[in-house]
Amino acid sequence: MQSNLPKKSLFDIPEGVIYLDGNSLGPTPKGVAERAAKTIQEEWGRDLIKAWNTAGWMALPAVVGDKIAALIGAEAGSVATGDTLSIKVYQALAAAFKMRPDRRVVVSDNGNFPTDLYMAQGLMDTIDKGYQLRTPAPQDVMEAITEDTAAVLLTQVDYRTGRLHDMAAITAKAHEVGAVMIWDLAHSAGAMPIDIAASGAEFAVGCTYKYLNGGPGAPAFIYARPDIVEEIEPALAGWLGHDAPFAMEPTYRPAMKAERLRVGTPSILQLTVLDQALSVWEGVDLADIRAASMALSDLFIELVEANCPALTLASPRDANERGSQVSFAFEHGYPAMQALIERGVIGDFREPNIMRFGFTPLYLDSADVRQAEKVLSEIINKGLWQDEKYNQRGRVT
Amino acid sequence: MQSNLPKKSLFDIPEGVIYLDGNSLGPTPKGVAERAAKTIQEEWGRDLIKAWNTAGWMALPAVVGDKIAALIGAEAGSVATGDTLSIKVYQALAAAFKMRPDRRVVVSDNGNFPTDLYMAQGLMDTIDKGYQLRTPAPQDVMEAITEDTAAVLLTQVDYRTGRLHDMAAITAKAHEVGAVMIWDLAHSAGAMPIDIAASGAEFAVGCTYKYLNGGPGAPAFIYARPDIVEEIEPALAGWLGHDAPFAMEPTYRPAMKAERLRVGTPSILQLTVLDQALSVWEGVDLADIRAASMALSDLFIELVEANCPALTLASPRDANERGSQVSFAFEHGYPAMQALIERGVIGDFREPNIMRFGFTPLYLDSADVRQAEKVLSEIINKGLWQDEKYNQRGRVT
Repeated sequence: MQSNLPKKSLFDIPEGVIYLDGNSLGPTPKGVAERAAKTIQEEWGRDLIKAWNTAGWMALPAVVGDKIAALIGAEAGSVATGDTLSIKVYQALAAAFKMRPDRRVVVSDNGNFPTDLYMAQGLMDTIDKGYQLRTPAPQDVMEAITEDTAAVLLTQVDYRTGRLHDMAAITAKAHEVGAVMIWDLAHSAGAMPIDIAASGAEFAVGCTYKYLNGGPGAPAFIYARPDIVEEIEPALAGWLGHDAPFAMEPTYRPAMKAERLRVGTPSILQLTVLDQALSVWEGVDLADIRAASMALSDLFIELVEANCPALTLASPRDANERGSQVSFAFEHGYPAMQALIERGVIGDFREPNIMRFGFTPLYLDSADVRQAEKVLSEIINKGLWQDEKYNQRGRVT
Repeated sequence: MQSNLPKKSLFDIPEGVIYLDGNSLGPTPKGVAERAAKTIQEEWGRDLIKAWNTAGWMALPAVVGDKIAALIGAEAGSVATGDTLSIKVYQALAAAFKMRPDRRVVVSDNGNFPTDLYMAQGLMDTIDKGYQLRTPAPQDVMEAITEDTAAVLLTQVDYRTGRLHDMAAITAKAHEVGAVMIWDLAHSAGAMPIDIAASGAEFAVGCTYKYLNGGPGAPAFIYARPDIVEEIEPALAGWLGHDAPFAMEPTYRPAMKAERLRVGTPSILQLTVLDQALSVWEGVDLADIRAASMALSDLFIELVEANCPALTLASPRDANERGSQVSFAFEHGYPAMQALIERGVIGDFREPNIMRFGFTPLYLDSADVRQAEKVLSEIINKGLWQDEKYNQRGRVT
């Protein structure tokens, strides 16, 4: 059970808060403030420009990339870090287009996080050669992948419903028709075991501020399958993806590994904090995390459905078909979530009517889940959300 | 004179160090460690996801953008922050291509920082419609701007030589032939007065870790001229450039101001540190900075040429034609720079033979310059650079 996972003590979570929004922004791992202070005062402050070497800044993106690789079942050296997830989606899709020059269709789904779809649209408009974005409902993706498909771009876990795509089956279908597979692991990296290498997918991308607790605006990552990396022609051909950045050559010549998917100067302060945050995972088996998360979310569903009939489950009922979050639809979900947050139970709201709760066994146990449900049910059953103050739409996340 | 600029006390510079590399990575402004600690412990740590609102994170990119706007002569609301300079170059150039759909030539120069050229190449290869990059010598740029030019992409101050382009004249020439003008201000923002609005340039981009002292990997910025911003079709169509990011609409609809040039989730930790670093500029007149920098660099040239004949000036002699750095060519520049750094005078080396020195009056005065020259001349004149330890090429920046 989750209560045996001894990691809660590794986080600084405010007294009285039950945090069910680690799927949006993970909480603060202990030690990150000290690490940031070290980076600023000892490295930047004392060593100045020399810190690129003395403090290992130049190597840091790859060091962090290897730590992430270990969490998603990727080969060492196959994950580059930096930029944002949006940028990494663009890189992967642009590379896929180059790999399938005669195809013009991208298959995604209509539940994908908007920025993935926006970035695809932006790329297609930039190239302006008749590309199309096909966005069926999530359950219809398999049929939408056809011989005209250049790339399949899917987020493994739906940000709204928590619905989990079948990575193996969809990747196999993509390859069967000759398409390139790109997985967005935003809501799965750190939430469950992923074996991206075994899936055979060409690319995976993700962010590190959710289940990996890297802090607000932590760098993103991109995986490229090692056997295809040398055929990637980077669209975002930045100097730190060059084989010899400091040779200052006039012509771009990509690095020979996933490093070619780096772009500009890395955000060192965010990277050191992320590096520190990833130390939480030492000795953690993601299979244990997954089992505990399924138990916690099953418990939450059971309690809410028993006590709070006004809420309708908007996630798959079978935990095997969900990520690490549970969503309930409720017409007054926005004010209800504000009322909940005011009482120390932090989830979030997603348009149009989704109350979203993340279950992260690193720092949550069944007592937290029971308490959260109790507060939620009281708010709903007593109509406490009707207070006008909860309906002020200033909140943006 | 520079000695009257009372800002040296606002920086934490190690005892015994004369820092002539603020053109690569600015030193640590006082207060940034405290600001980072506040962001981590009070904002992220205590408010968790709520901090996007309670701590003003959502607004921060625009707040910082306006502070940068004030330093480059840009209108409030016209500067977006985030990502890296490489990414911002790509955004500006992609937008320029959309604005000039019938033209296929980009004019830059062969002294431009490589990543600008690489990003242009990557974009041109991605679109794959016969674009060409024209890179004459810096002094031949004016003639290279012709009726076929879609965009002119230049760095105002040459990273190697410090040579300063004539912003007004080149922008006028670009517009005369109907081209879009993009200025890279990497080596000029914070180093001298810039009036980007008066120049009429459509775009400007820059980084904040050099003269703006934002720390390693600090976010980049992009300016778009207000009257053209609504015609920009962002290639990197990320959700935070959307007019209503949290409406989670399926189709991209760009924000109505420079915010459309934002892409993904902002790197909050780097942004708060940058915001703090920018407070150094309160009450500073960039004309004073420029005058002091010219005096310091003139003094350095005079002393080096008098005492150190082995070094050849590689920057324009007239301070009006230079940025805020001075470069000398020396065949053994690499080991000489290492010897200098070991003695506490920090400049940097750029291939093939350039010793580069930045003069930043915020934290340097003429006594520093005299001392730096003394140490340099001793190293060169006594051949102290010949010690084998200085030739180990581990140093990458």
